Amino acid sequence: MNDSFSHLDDQGRARMVDVTDKDTTARTAHARARVRMAPRTLAMILDQEHPKGDVLAVARLAGIQAAKKTWDLIPLCHPLMLSGVEVQLEPDGDDALRVDARCKLKGRTGVEMEALTAASVAALTVYDMCKAVDRAMEIEHIHLVEKTGGRSGEFRREAP
Amino acid sequence: MNDSFSHLDDQGRARMVDVTDKDTTARTAHARARVRMAPRTLAMILDQEHPKGDVLAVARLAGIQAAKKTWDLIPLCHPLMLSGVEVQLEPDGDDALRVDARCKLKGRTGVEMEALTAASVAALTVYDMCKAVDRAMEIEHIHLVEKTGGRSGEFRREAP
Amino acid sequence: MNDSFSHLDDQGRARMVDVTDKDTTARTAHARARVRMAPRTLAMILDQEHPKGDVLAVARLAGIQAAKKTWDLIPLCHPLMLSGVEVQLEPDGDDALRVDARCKLKGRTGVEMEALTAASVAALTVYDMCKAVDRAMEIEHIHLVEKTGGRSGEFRREAP
Amino acid sequence: MNDSFSHLDDQGRARMVDVTDKDTTARTAHARARVRMAPRTLAMILDQEHPKGDVLAVARLAGIQAAKKTWDLIPLCHPLMLSGVEVQLEPDGDDALRVDARCKLKGRTGVEMEALTAASVAALTVYDMCKAVDRAMEIEHIHLVEKTGGRSGEFRREAP
Amino acid sequence: MNDSFSHLDDQGRARMVDVTDKDTTARTAHARARVRMAPRTLAMILDQEHPKGDVLAVARLAGIQAAKKTWDLIPLCHPLMLSGVEVQLEPDGDDALRVDARCKLKGRTGVEMEALTAASVAALTVYDMCKAVDRAMEIEHIHLVEKTGGRSGEFRREAP
Amino acid sequence: MNDSFSHLDDQGRARMVDVTDKDTTARTAHARARVRMAPRTLAMILDQEHPKGDVLAVARLAGIQAAKKTWDLIPLCHPLMLSGVEVQLEPDGDDALRVDARCKLKGRTGVEMEALTAASVAALTVYDMCKAVDRAMEIEHIHLVEKTGGRSGEFRREAP
Repeated sequence: MNDSFSHLDDQGRARMVDVTDKDTTARTAHARARVRMAPRTLAMILDQEHPKGDVLAVARLAGIQAAKKTWDLIPLCHPLMLSGVEVQLEPDGDDALRVDARCKLKGRTGVEMEALTAASVAALTVYDMCKAVDRAMEIEHIHLVEKTGGRSGEFRREAP
Repeated sequence: MNDSFSHLDDQGRARMVDVTDKDTTARTAHARARVRMAPRTLAMILDQEHPKGDVLAVARLAGIQAAKKTWDLIPLCHPLMLSGVEVQLEPDGDDALRVDARCKLKGRTGVEMEALTAASVAALTVYDMCKAVDRAMEIEHIHLVEKTGGRSGEFRREAP
Repeated sequence: MNDSFSHLDDQGRARMVDVTDKDTTARTAHARARVRMAPRTLAMILDQEHPKGDVLAVARLAGIQAAKKTWDLIPLCHPLMLSGVEVQLEPDGDDALRVDARCKLKGRTGVEMEALTAASVAALTVYDMCKAVDRAMEIEHIHLVEKTGGRSGEFRREAP
Repeated sequence: MNDSFSHLDDQGRARMVDVTDKDTTARTAHARARVRMAPRTLAMILDQEHPKGDVLAVARLAGIQAAKKTWDLIPLCHPLMLSGVEVQLEPDGDDALRVDARCKLKGRTGVEMEALTAASVAALTVYDMCKAVDRAMEIEHIHLVEKTGGRSGEFRREAP
Repeated sequence: MNDSFSHLDDQGRARMVDVTDKDTTARTAHARARVRMAPRTLAMILDQEHPKGDVLAVARLAGIQAAKKTWDLIPLCHPLMLSGVEVQLEPDGDDALRVDARCKLKGRTGVEMEALTAASVAALTVYDMCKAVDRAMEIEHIHLVEKTGGRSGEFRREAP
Repeated sequence: MNDSFSHLDDQGRARMVDVTDKDTTARTAHARARVRMAPRTLAMILDQEHPKGDVLAVARLAGIQAAKKTWDLIPLCHPLMLSGVEVQLEPDGDDALRVDARCKLKGRTGVEMEALTAASVAALTVYDMCKAVDRAMEIEHIHLVEKTGGRSGEFRREAP
């Protein structure tokens, strides 16, 4: 762990960190979020999923597309060329959806922010799709589960 | 509260809801998120804030700009013309930052998603700025605090 | 019908036409496209649609989102705030999908380009989803079916 | 040709295919579209082209810029860094313009979608520029003419 | 003239100013820039303009499109719906091009930033098109010529 | 120096130049702009900068983000993956701010346009933040200071 914020220069001014000389390596990141909702809301989502309802499909798409726009959303992120993105939404108990986003890259910077952004936007999209039914939903526990590759090496979050 | 998801037609297919005939009224929304971190990380943010460090300024900006892009991030949101956005970040205890985002509009649709998106992206930006120091940070409790205006009227979240 | 191209000034130079003084009225447009493919490809799309396959859901979403970006794609289009978008994909015989896009607005300009862009991008997305299986697909007959509202009044394409 | 849609996982859920381990090779694609219009409309375009009219210049530009945005328009396309784009518009008989778009890349994925998107958006832009004069124009036969590079090798469409 | 920066709150923190209660009025702005270059470069631009060269057409388009993106480029600008944009480029002596950008809107905020952004990006595009020939070009005197509408009323820059 | 505009083909038509076969090398560019203003305006900026005012922080951010969007703003620029961006704003006498933007890349094309765009947009953002106080500000002398890397080699502007 560093002793200073790498996105700030020695006078505290924001910059896009120079990674020109970093190695191009394979990198992955896995982030997770949880959308807590009324059990009835979850039942409605799962129920309409049976025939061909679009709630989870829309959220998956929104997450994948947001991963590709991370460089535009998070001001100091580097532009990069993701080589793979997966977003999954699964029921977590009877009152929550769990969102898992996984990103891959061969490049000079990690893809944690891409995975976190994908999970967050997929969760926000679930909120949007269901808000007419349940305005008190809450998005919880957005966190990095694991990352591999790069100089800082592997990170795996300890079980809470 | 509705009995069905307004973003889906009667066959479960996604659409951008027709609001052509809704009234143009003043609408506001206030959303909140929390970034939990190690006390030492928070101390570093607050400390570097003294001279002219940019962490909180960058996060505020990222939140404001994300609010303007909500229509592009959340697939079924309507494009709209926000008339005001404020994002504030304050310490919340010794191990968290609280993010408050407030959006305003005179228009045909609510601005909850804009406020939630602003709060989420400001929180993600804090994560990005500090991740070299504290990779285990977590974004918590993204929720709508209050909304006013529109047919569904006022919403105020009850204290948990 | 005009005698000159409204997007060009009297010296042939491109401009974004001044609509400041046009009336704000309700406007609609309906555009259509067709994706012709091998019968086997269509069968695969329809077949995987049964459980919860995403081909048509992804194409619908792509069309809706593209409608919102028309001002950015078509250089002289005005920015506008769509108040409703629907994209439908249906089998058309045994070797084609028909794409129907409908857009609505209360504003100063028509929404033909938005509907045509939605239909085109939904069709391109079908191509993308299926190209590993059938690279010879073709997008046909992108045209305006109908428009209402605005000074030029109603347009309805005659049956071919 | 594959037996399944590569953009869907084995449960039919959309994903951005993992190309991390694909080779970086030179790739090209050539796509074509046709804008059919009244002979008088084509005559107006060609006529105003003589001095310095902008119709074809605007369409060329729109096509080139759209190629660069394909990753944002087509939900499961990978972001990539095009190394060359050309868009040409030529009269095709007395009632049509032919649009040819060619894209190049050194990368891990093909550029068919970029070429198809460039041709489509250039054609839509012609429609936009001329719609005040001829609303019944139609965009036809958007198809891939040829591609080279990549694992699936060369593709060349047979003459119809 | 104000005594404080309206984009900052009383603690110096950035915000998007609340214009919810401002009147919707017609507003215009006219901005100008100058691209100074070697006389030979200007001669090449004007010379290739004769048949159907695209330098000035590309710059015009780039300026018009940039005006539409001002809300995304300038962090605290409001999103707005321009109702007209014109960009003109004319020789200014034998060693410069003058860029004039004019924007119009019926809305709650002025369009100065849109006109200034259009003029700047058109000028940058001239630089891009000609840089292989003349890398020492310089963009000068980007300024607001005139604005009308809104509470602050008319502004007209005095002759220098 | 070339004898022709590389962005135009031999008939004067715009294209995105083919760089597929260029070498991937390290490239840098440094561009500069100046915002001239009333001495009182500069004093206000510097004064509010002491505690934690956001004017310069917002301008820095806007410049960095604009560098990442250059491919979208300047029509014939190639998409590329910047590996580092820095934007600095310093007082220049008592009536101006000097903006310095530096960009880095390992790639096939130069980054002059990225540095020039960053400097221009940072300067425009200063204008936006201060326009309520001083509408007669002017952006001056946007130019390339230096570039390194690439076939055309090093460029360093001579002192004026």
